[in-house]
Amino acid sequence: MASPEEVEQKYELITRGLKEVLGGDAIKAILTEGRSPKCYWGKCTAPTGKPHIGYFVALTKIADFLRAGVTVKILLADIHAFLDNLKAPLDVVSYRTKYYEFLLRAVFTSLGIPTSKLIFVEGSSYQLTKEYNLDNYRLCATVTEHDAKKAGAEVVKQVDSPLLSGLLYPGLQALDEQYLDVDFQFGGVDQRKIFTFAELYLPRLGYAKRSHLMNPMVPGLTGGKMSSSDPKSKIDFLDPPEEVRKKIKNAFCEEGNITENGLLAFIETVLIPISEMRLERMRGETVADDEEGKGASGSQKPFIADDAPEGTVFTIKRNPKWGAPSHYKSYKELENDFAEKKLHPSDLKPSVADAIVSLLEPIRKAFLESEEWQNVERTAYPDPNAKPEGKKKKKEKVYHPPPPGKGKNANATNAPADPNIPATEGATSAVVNVDGVKEATSS
Amino acid sequence: MASPEEVEQKYELITRGLKEVLGGDAIKAILTEGRSPKCYWGKCTAPTGKPHIGYFVALTKIADFLRAGVTVKILLADIHAFLDNLKAPLDVVSYRTKYYEFLLRAVFTSLGIPTSKLIFVEGSSYQLTKEYNLDNYRLCATVTEHDAKKAGAEVVKQVDSPLLSGLLYPGLQALDEQYLDVDFQFGGVDQRKIFTFAELYLPRLGYAKRSHLMNPMVPGLTGGKMSSSDPKSKIDFLDPPEEVRKKIKNAFCEEGNITENGLLAFIETVLIPISEMRLERMRGETVADDEEGKGASGSQKPFIADDAPEGTVFTIKRNPKWGAPSHYKSYKELENDFAEKKLHPSDLKPSVADAIVSLLEPIRKAFLESEEWQNVERTAYPDPNAKPEGKKKKKEKVYHPPPPGKGKNANATNAPADPNIPATEGATSAVVNVDGVKEATSS
Repeated sequence: MASPEEVEQKYELITRGLKEVLGGDAIKAILTEGRSPKCYWGKCTAPTGKPHIGYFVALTKIADFLRAGVTVKILLADIHAFLDNLKAPLDVVSYRTKYYEFLLRAVFTSLGIPTSKLIFVEGSSYQLTKEYNLDNYRLCATVTEHDAKKAGAEVVKQVDSPLLSGLLYPGLQALDEQYLDVDFQFGGVDQRKIFTFAELYLPRLGYAKRSHLMNPMVPGLTGGKMSSSDPKSKIDFLDPPEEVRKKIKNAFCEEGNITENGLLAFIETVLIPISEMRLERMRGETVADDEEGKGASGSQKPFIADDAPEGTVFTIKRNPKWGAPSHYKSYKELENDFAEKKLHPSDLKPSVADAIVSLLEPIRKAFLESEEWQNVERTAYPDPNAKPEGKKKKKEKVYHPPPPGKGKNANATNAPADPNIPATEGATSAVVNVDGVKEATSS
Repeated sequence: MASPEEVEQKYELITRGLKEVLGGDAIKAILTEGRSPKCYWGKCTAPTGKPHIGYFVALTKIADFLRAGVTVKILLADIHAFLDNLKAPLDVVSYRTKYYEFLLRAVFTSLGIPTSKLIFVEGSSYQLTKEYNLDNYRLCATVTEHDAKKAGAEVVKQVDSPLLSGLLYPGLQALDEQYLDVDFQFGGVDQRKIFTFAELYLPRLGYAKRSHLMNPMVPGLTGGKMSSSDPKSKIDFLDPPEEVRKKIKNAFCEEGNITENGLLAFIETVLIPISEMRLERMRGETVADDEEGKGASGSQKPFIADDAPEGTVFTIKRNPKWGAPSHYKSYKELENDFAEKKLHPSDLKPSVADAIVSLLEPIRKAFLESEEWQNVERTAYPDPNAKPEGKKKKKEKVYHPPPPGKGKNANATNAPADPNIPATEGATSAVVNVDGVKEATSS
């Protein structure tokens, strides 16, 4: 049994900043018993593209869970990724899931978040089993087309000729809760209909109804919904500082506009919570875990100036030409200043860029220090412009005999070309590699 | 290599009487190579209810396949049966599949059809494997909702709130062709859209397109579409002769009406083909197999009178009061007589009943001689009115203590009731058995 204060404290940490909580009582009951709730996060981890730093929004919330002693199971949805496009073969997908795991562990480690309760699960480890598939069939024999469609309406791409798989996903995601054996699922509030679908249907299969914790939806960092498919705007976790600064400089950030502003959203959902966490640690206020803060790499400085007054959670530095720095005690204060045009985008941007650069620095360092991670990266996301040296297989040399009467052996008429004999000196053969890139080899 | 005559003869046997053939050339090519085509029949064998003799229509056609040397794989769709209602637990379903196998083997054996190439496959033996399910997912990521819906339009029950499973079935049936490794699928022409769906989509997964052979749809034997759910009208394979005669007597059969006439349809699709087969055998005309006719049990007499003229395939016997018997050389002749009211229902019915009784006699005999089959039958289709002695498990006796101050131990106040102690003599406890039938046990 945990004390009511401890329960409240942990519950507050688990749920703070969320847009909506369904089944909060069940989580409180688990905390009261002194148990660790188990959480599943999956939707955002179909490892199709390279993750961008928009992930920090969810990861910052997950950091709260881990700090409150929650066991967090991150689903590396390899089967879904494979099905999403049917382009990447399953073995490439498996490297991508490895890449995700390297990255996410590096992120949590850099923040000093205890990771002993962080578990990565590959979907393929259970989603192809007999039991899971029988349950999938049972679910399909229970769920109406209408309910499946409604559940996926916000998260499944709505197209003219929707694929059948779109109707399966809500059910599979519900089954994941059972098969991952968790107490709650975490996701964006765009998952609400999927979550309520799971709450309705899991009990019909005889399984427990799970709680659902939802993050608010925020605009993408650099304008509009940050998309992995626009490589120019997205900021990669491994981008070097100059790249980060350039992208932030080009980000959409209109003076006085606080609604479509990815930078403000990032300050609210990532930078200030991390800044606060660091301040809490400095004050010795850790909630749950002895591991808290241990092993943190890189600067653990909150995003405030050294001379910031007590209670500051974020400082906007300024070129002295334009005035003194602004110290904010809450996001709301900063937002108000921006709305009233007391805080200009050209002052906001460098402070955000500085904070992001300092966040990414230890992650980039971990990558550069890990040969294994680098190898995984190369296979998971091959450079389409690179020469295919990743494939160690020797290319078979093709001998194109010179036209009759030409070439070195012009006199040896009708000598058969032996494909096993290397092409004669100076001959050039065209080899088409696996990526379809035409490459001239001279042998 | 087979001779063109042999190919033609086998192809004719395989396709005669069918309503439609898609991909006949592929079957001819296999026959020309001297190989045995492989066939899959599945749709009608979801073992939910007890099979009725309407199955003879498909089985008579399958007899042609077997006689032509085709390998016939009959899918005992246990998973589908389980899903169809989610009422019968999987272990009861497994007894039903055993019952089907006993029955179908008995039918073919009684007809003297070679069964060495008859293979029964339980769906659960491959439909829950990793490979099959991954292919199911792949298919769902390829098939549009629209195409899946269209494919199932004729065979999936159309209701206001259709279940998701209805959209999965066409794809699963397509995958069955691949996983059963067959050359063609056989079914009623109501399966046409499912079949063309399979022809379209299997190649998109990289699998071969299969041929499709379709039987005509015929009215049920005893009026309307013969349904397993109307136990009064359907004729069970194991019905005793008097039951068969009674049901045939009550069958819908309107004078002169040849379109809604299950008896005529049964003569055309079952009785005359079997009669012809027996005549062919008597003339020594067997197509493919040395086994042909061996092991046949019961009367192997064609359904013609002893003194019928050469070429007769069906004889209508008559009470001499009403005239001489009619001998028909083809179904068409018989149908014409019925249409012109030269053949009266009261003459048609007894002849059909005689033929069916003689067809069922060896099947019923096989059942009565096989203790194993009888045991399977009891577990597969428990008599809802019987006392539940099929379940060998001892019922736990529930002790209902008498109200305070009553009963034998009235004086032992507050003595706790031990549920492990048998109820005292004369006490009556209500035990609800698995079927929900309330039964009083006196202990």
